[in-house]
Amino acid sequence: MAIPEELWREIDATREQWSQTHRPTVPAMEELLYLPFAILDHGFVRVIDYQGDDAAIVQAARVSYGKGTKSVRDDRALIRYLLRKKHTTPFEMCELKLHVKLPIFVARQWIRTRTASVNEYSARFSVLEDDFYVPEIAQICAQSTENRQGRGEQLADAVVVQESIRSLSKLAYATYTSLLERGVARELARIIVPPNVYSMWYWKIDLHNLLRFQLLRLDERAQWEIRQYAEVIDMLLRKWVPVTHQAFMDYQRYAVSLSAMARGVIKRLLKGEQVQRDYDLMSKREWDELIGEFELEDVIA
Amino acid sequence: MAIPEELWREIDATREQWSQTHRPTVPAMEELLYLPFAILDHGFVRVIDYQGDDAAIVQAARVSYGKGTKSVRDDRALIRYLLRKKHTTPFEMCELKLHVKLPIFVARQWIRTRTASVNEYSARFSVLEDDFYVPEIAQICAQSTENRQGRGEQLADAVVVQESIRSLSKLAYATYTSLLERGVARELARIIVPPNVYSMWYWKIDLHNLLRFQLLRLDERAQWEIRQYAEVIDMLLRKWVPVTHQAFMDYQRYAVSLSAMARGVIKRLLKGEQVQRDYDLMSKREWDELIGEFELEDVIA
Amino acid sequence: MAIPEELWREIDATREQWSQTHRPTVPAMEELLYLPFAILDHGFVRVIDYQGDDAAIVQAARVSYGKGTKSVRDDRALIRYLLRKKHTTPFEMCELKLHVKLPIFVARQWIRTRTASVNEYSARFSVLEDDFYVPEIAQICAQSTENRQGRGEQLADAVVVQESIRSLSKLAYATYTSLLERGVARELARIIVPPNVYSMWYWKIDLHNLLRFQLLRLDERAQWEIRQYAEVIDMLLRKWVPVTHQAFMDYQRYAVSLSAMARGVIKRLLKGEQVQRDYDLMSKREWDELIGEFELEDVIA
Amino acid sequence: MAIPEELWREIDATREQWSQTHRPTVPAMEELLYLPFAILDHGFVRVIDYQGDDAAIVQAARVSYGKGTKSVRDDRALIRYLLRKKHTTPFEMCELKLHVKLPIFVARQWIRTRTASVNEYSARFSVLEDDFYVPEIAQICAQSTENRQGRGEQLADAVVVQESIRSLSKLAYATYTSLLERGVARELARIIVPPNVYSMWYWKIDLHNLLRFQLLRLDERAQWEIRQYAEVIDMLLRKWVPVTHQAFMDYQRYAVSLSAMARGVIKRLLKGEQVQRDYDLMSKREWDELIGEFELEDVIA
Repeated sequence: MAIPEELWREIDATREQWSQTHRPTVPAMEELLYLPFAILDHGFVRVIDYQGDDAAIVQAARVSYGKGTKSVRDDRALIRYLLRKKHTTPFEMCELKLHVKLPIFVARQWIRTRTASVNEYSARFSVLEDDFYVPEIAQICAQSTENRQGRGEQLADAVVVQESIRSLSKLAYATYTSLLERGVARELARIIVPPNVYSMWYWKIDLHNLLRFQLLRLDERAQWEIRQYAEVIDMLLRKWVPVTHQAFMDYQRYAVSLSAMARGVIKRLLKGEQVQRDYDLMSKREWDELIGEFELEDVIA
Repeated sequence: MAIPEELWREIDATREQWSQTHRPTVPAMEELLYLPFAILDHGFVRVIDYQGDDAAIVQAARVSYGKGTKSVRDDRALIRYLLRKKHTTPFEMCELKLHVKLPIFVARQWIRTRTASVNEYSARFSVLEDDFYVPEIAQICAQSTENRQGRGEQLADAVVVQESIRSLSKLAYATYTSLLERGVARELARIIVPPNVYSMWYWKIDLHNLLRFQLLRLDERAQWEIRQYAEVIDMLLRKWVPVTHQAFMDYQRYAVSLSAMARGVIKRLLKGEQVQRDYDLMSKREWDELIGEFELEDVIA
Repeated sequence: MAIPEELWREIDATREQWSQTHRPTVPAMEELLYLPFAILDHGFVRVIDYQGDDAAIVQAARVSYGKGTKSVRDDRALIRYLLRKKHTTPFEMCELKLHVKLPIFVARQWIRTRTASVNEYSARFSVLEDDFYVPEIAQICAQSTENRQGRGEQLADAVVVQESIRSLSKLAYATYTSLLERGVARELARIIVPPNVYSMWYWKIDLHNLLRFQLLRLDERAQWEIRQYAEVIDMLLRKWVPVTHQAFMDYQRYAVSLSAMARGVIKRLLKGEQVQRDYDLMSKREWDELIGEFELEDVIA
Repeated sequence: MAIPEELWREIDATREQWSQTHRPTVPAMEELLYLPFAILDHGFVRVIDYQGDDAAIVQAARVSYGKGTKSVRDDRALIRYLLRKKHTTPFEMCELKLHVKLPIFVARQWIRTRTASVNEYSARFSVLEDDFYVPEIAQICAQSTENRQGRGEQLADAVVVQESIRSLSKLAYATYTSLLERGVARELARIIVPPNVYSMWYWKIDLHNLLRFQLLRLDERAQWEIRQYAEVIDMLLRKWVPVTHQAFMDYQRYAVSLSAMARGVIKRLLKGEQVQRDYDLMSKREWDELIGEFELEDVIA
């Protein structure tokens, strides 16, 4: 990623400014504020602003409980309880604002999270830059045979594929430039620039909705490219709201949901009963997932 | 309004804390942060946190425009342009978080603004306090004869009415207390406490949606009590985002929308044509409003 | 519940009308359309309109998959897969519109579901009727000792409590009436009418958000009164979208979420390892819930 | 537009089915249900389902007003009043569900309307078809000199430009196909297919939010291509909810908003006062717009 000189100057200038505030402040976030974290070949995520911290969640939750609750449960336990029992509104009391540079095909997935605010670079107003995402060799993989929407093994002729992507991108950008030179309106010329071109946006979201975004985009079923952004945001969450982040991992990311049927199967196994695959109870896929999850290959025939 | 001793201690403690931050900071807001502004007989509004300022709106808008736009229009002009042309997304980039004490009948109107985050005091968890809104004499008015949902003239026997409201509130609270003493569950006992009792909540909203709330709640058709809250928020907006606040007054609050028909009428009048009321064109009410708006009593028969 | 004569006439008139439509139609819903289902002492729920059915969910989901997917998985399996894997958008393709009569304290909980459309009876425009919820004896219970927001055992002097609620309601309504007679504006007079008074509204919501509402309001932690409404809606869902309803029960209502820690405990138990309560791993409450859930009282010390 | 044979069979089959329903039904909508309306070179819009009609809006609004209001104002007057006074919630009581085929660059603008439900064709699951938008000669225009985001005059060498767009599209699709043949995962291969390729989606939205979409997308500042879709939807609205559609034109689409300043200027002119441009009062652009709007070129110096 090459951060333009101009942006660096802006970052330096902003980071030199310090103000005094009564508001909740997270030193670990102040340290990284405005700095770009590189993602993919030209992308980045920068924190532009944040509102609230772990304590702000507790503060809002305590309004519901009224007086005298403070002693009952300490802050960490309360946050974990709220997340576990899906009392989600206190997590809406925190906000994160990011500046993101991302390929348009990633932006198209990202924008499906509707409860967020966005200001995107407009190719109607401005000329697109010559920044295209070209996947690295390790990421040029075959269609997955198991997952209709995913990737499988690395391809033998990944180099050829990579070159193909690179040269098509170049050609498209050259055509775009020539259209602009002929005077074609920007809003029209840009329709032939493929979605591996980079765009950028300001994106603001509350913590509750951000955790939902993360659950979706950290998942292995998410496309690898958007997952790289989610991983950086995961690191940011760990610094911003460490208690909430840990609770998120314990009760959401690494939690597992057992269906009524799976719950019954586990219960019977725990009582020492023998269980056999029964396709009237669960589909083959569900049996496979349950057996895989709890390493029951030797237990369930 | 009597702020409990405990809250004052908390306010003082928080206001003594200062942190250093790189984030945009508004000195006028720091000055009033956490302080309660009294509303009605026992209500208040306190700013708990804010995110962004006038400059943050400009910054987000400029992402869309890309480079080179900066010189074209200065910040103030850009904010006014955005509001005038209803480019609303940059205004979502700012957030305000309030702590509000308000009668439940006001809360019921307030909550109709759905794009906001709320944590309310729960009368299932905690005991309601003996705080009831009793309107002052000047506000005890007759049903409006013009507006089916509003108030008209002050009532002659306002004192009797006020006493009536006060004594019913007292009795309801006494009954509530006696039910609690008999061991009745809080969630049940509270169902007989009338909605002039005070509740409180944390309420967080972005600036775009807050302006929509204000437009609705500053309006003379809004109930007088909720308007008192909107007036305090108006003062907060003036301090927080002065340029946006002025633009809001110029292009929204004191703007007027002319229907296609009214627009035609004005056009004809400006050309020197004579215009007469035509009830096929507009309803009586619309004619009255147009004539009132532009003081055309002597012009349109 | 006494349905006013006028409403019955309207219901009868509407139910006599039949139109021809190409739209998806659910005979079981046509049968019950507009009919009031009684809830509590004076409340009801009526279906006013519905859009879509189980097939409409499948149809929307198949747009994403493109051609050739049809054979792979039949409709029922696809709906169950979507709900299991939290592919929620196809469920937004169905809508339910209800007419609900409900006490205001229930309405206050209900309205917290923000992704829905509401038109409520306005006590600023119209006079409140003399309809108050008075809980039946069996529901007049003590504060729960386990659940800070719930009810426990039935109270010995429930009859006295019931009488207390009834007489306060009567008195409040008499005061309200007298204020109206003195000419007090409706918007002011109503502030002393307690929230066990009935209101009514039209409420429209998509199926995805309705299932979230149901998960919350069918839960035993929900207040008993709102649960009665959720139970009727559950019955409506069973008739409207039977496949989705069954999937909802299997994968959401009667599913259980295991935290990362609980998942590890279960895994160890299934491998035959001994497990002991460890309060560094999980809180007492979490241990209790896990042991209760899988009946492990004899297994975990 | 070439509708695939398979889709026609599906349309015919569905249109042969008639069901009986008690629900509000709009004959003009039944007539066009499922039929594709051609837009651009390969796009279309089809109505898949609708809920409610003009009467449903009135019905919901009347819940707020309670009894006795019926006589005061007839249905048409009530709808016009609601729209004029921005009582928007009753318009949320109607829903429209469309099947839309549209170029991806149009989809990117469209999706900015967040309060809607979407299921889009997934190029991770399925192979993109060889359908690209190539603008007709009349639409190949130069960058506007007045509007930084729009188009101006037609270009002299539009034919060359058109050929350029067509050949780049062909080449990109050929490259895409070759990548798929090499076994590249679909989610990766598609990143080089430019956004003039067609996608399709199911899109469901309530009438209130649809009118907001229309106001934005019928505007001359909207890109010409998305305006073509808005024009077809405008025709659908006229058939579905004719009274609301007329009110929308009168009070929104062809209404004009006067700022506090412009309002003052008009008032002075109507009183016969002389007015001169004053750039402290309004910007040059605002003066130009006001003078243009009311044809005041000869009146204001």
